[in-house]
Amino acid sequence: MLQRMPAEPGMREDEVETPALILDLDAFEANLDAMAARLAPTGAKLRAHAKTHKSPVIARLQMARGAVGQCVQKVAEAEILAWGGVDDILVSNEVVSPRKLARLAALSGIARVAVCADDPAAIPLIEEAAEAAGRRLSVLVEIDVGAGRCGVAPGPEAVALAGRIAASPHLRFGGLQAYHGKAQHLRTPEERAGAIRHAAEATRRTLEQLRQQGLDCPIVGGAGTGSFPLELESGLWTEIQAGSYAFMDADYARNDAPPPFRQSLFVLAQVMSAPKGSGRAVVDAGHKALPTDSGTPLVHGRPGLCYGRPSDEHGTITAEDAALPAIGEKLRLVPGHCDPTVDRFDWYVGVRDGRVECLWPVAARGAMG
Amino acid sequence: MLQRMPAEPGMREDEVETPALILDLDAFEANLDAMAARLAPTGAKLRAHAKTHKSPVIARLQMARGAVGQCVQKVAEAEILAWGGVDDILVSNEVVSPRKLARLAALSGIARVAVCADDPAAIPLIEEAAEAAGRRLSVLVEIDVGAGRCGVAPGPEAVALAGRIAASPHLRFGGLQAYHGKAQHLRTPEERAGAIRHAAEATRRTLEQLRQQGLDCPIVGGAGTGSFPLELESGLWTEIQAGSYAFMDADYARNDAPPPFRQSLFVLAQVMSAPKGSGRAVVDAGHKALPTDSGTPLVHGRPGLCYGRPSDEHGTITAEDAALPAIGEKLRLVPGHCDPTVDRFDWYVGVRDGRVECLWPVAARGAMG
Repeated sequence: MLQRMPAEPGMREDEVETPALILDLDAFEANLDAMAARLAPTGAKLRAHAKTHKSPVIARLQMARGAVGQCVQKVAEAEILAWGGVDDILVSNEVVSPRKLARLAALSGIARVAVCADDPAAIPLIEEAAEAAGRRLSVLVEIDVGAGRCGVAPGPEAVALAGRIAASPHLRFGGLQAYHGKAQHLRTPEERAGAIRHAAEATRRTLEQLRQQGLDCPIVGGAGTGSFPLELESGLWTEIQAGSYAFMDADYARNDAPPPFRQSLFVLAQVMSAPKGSGRAVVDAGHKALPTDSGTPLVHGRPGLCYGRPSDEHGTITAEDAALPAIGEKLRLVPGHCDPTVDRFDWYVGVRDGRVECLWPVAARGAMG
Repeated sequence: MLQRMPAEPGMREDEVETPALILDLDAFEANLDAMAARLAPTGAKLRAHAKTHKSPVIARLQMARGAVGQCVQKVAEAEILAWGGVDDILVSNEVVSPRKLARLAALSGIARVAVCADDPAAIPLIEEAAEAAGRRLSVLVEIDVGAGRCGVAPGPEAVALAGRIAASPHLRFGGLQAYHGKAQHLRTPEERAGAIRHAAEATRRTLEQLRQQGLDCPIVGGAGTGSFPLELESGLWTEIQAGSYAFMDADYARNDAPPPFRQSLFVLAQVMSAPKGSGRAVVDAGHKALPTDSGTPLVHGRPGLCYGRPSDEHGTITAEDAALPAIGEKLRLVPGHCDPTVDRFDWYVGVRDGRVECLWPVAARGAMG
């Protein structure tokens, strides 16, 4: 349940016990600064997505650089952030469990919290939780801008739902959630631009109809690392929900014209077997350390080495025009997808100049409820 | 880091907070009994694999039915089991980190522990840890019987390694680890039989050569849920390392002539969005709850419903000749692969006759080090 700390400050990186989640602090800080610099001249704010990092420490570092708050996907993540000092949290997702809504309403005593809705059936549940807690909760309407997952249809349906929220005594219409996650992983810039153009049209139309009904829309939230310059360009989004920009991953690196951030997140693994004459080395990190939903990890800084054939606790390293690593060697692997990878670990090991500088808890690891 | 308990004994299953790991206790106990009955008339013992269940409670239930001990893949798993009352543990994997070997040697004060080796370079490391702790450690030689992962070549290389272990003052040659994991997921019985026939030939040859060198081989370990009747048939294996038999999963169900065990493990998920006219319902369990390395989960007991398009925290339910579930409904999903799925949760929710009977900790969750 609780994982042992894999390192102590002052250790060399090669002394860290494996598998471990390594954060290259120089690259990480450069990413936070780059995003802050990118957003500063626009009207838009960063509401960084904590489903990526699951860490109040990282959330506060983002907010120290101007982020307006954090998004989460789950009430349990909101709790961990609020308890860790984050005072403005949007659950950018639907919540329909009365117990979870009661937890969210209770949390609004120590932080500004908001939640999304995409169905009239959810409104009385949220109203009831807010009333029972004696609070007023902010509710955003999620519109489906092309992702084909959650969300009401843009236009009249969304406006009707906003009106219903605004008319609920303990609720406040918080704005629109207009997120097109799928668009970020379209491979060419043209495909991504087309998808976000479509999302922007739907959002603009809905905003106009809200205005016609006299409904003020304080927030338009959405966008992620793979598409946010396009959302910014439209001038419609007021809050950008990027998360991965802080870490990056192997999948974003496969996009044409990938986002301008550095790889800062790695899984450190150790070679624990290298059968003689087999042409392979085997490391101690497999499915349980490195989810493969977006492809297998890359071997960092060791050209010619390739990670493949993961099983639960093993991965196989093969070499092309390179020497295989020996038993005991440690390798930095670039996760295929940072979000579920971070969620496998209790500790970030922060490294600078080859030495461990800090350990930060992945405090919301496993917070799925 | 620590997850909230999703239920309390006495609750109805539909009151359990989602996502949650549900253990159908009737099916689970039937599986444990079926395996015990299957092994009783053979000379082989069960050394159940705890990398599947990660629970000292389940380990002790298996041992109460005759299992001789447990296997684990990681030292951290061995620690959790030993601290939870399991007194005979094999790390069925190579360990080459001096710190981890020191932890393993220290553990031998409260449990019988053994570890595998597949390289002469590892022997002085294990010897040093055993000597420093003032213990004698049992070391098995892992031979590659066809999996193409870890393991020395069967025959002379394996015998030389066994001799080296036997000659180390603080080590004892514990036997052979002969595991062909890949064979279990070959789709037809003929392919599986061919692979294990090959593994048995390699094992028999190595045993004969060990005997010729006067090396006693106390244990031959290996086999898993998908192949163990074949290993039993050979008469060579003394310890069967099945793990999944207790739970089963969607992937084993895709084999022709799948193993004769019942599905006992589920992830309970809730519908949190069902966009009008979209033909889909969206549940609150995605990659972070249901790893897809062996395919997507099945919807249990609801013919016509299909789970697909997982993202980090969402899955999409579609329907064919069936009504879509409504917002708030809870569904049992059958994991594609039980081992990494169990590793996502801190709690088993044990259910019988529709009511929560017990909560057991997944105590070694995340124990990767």
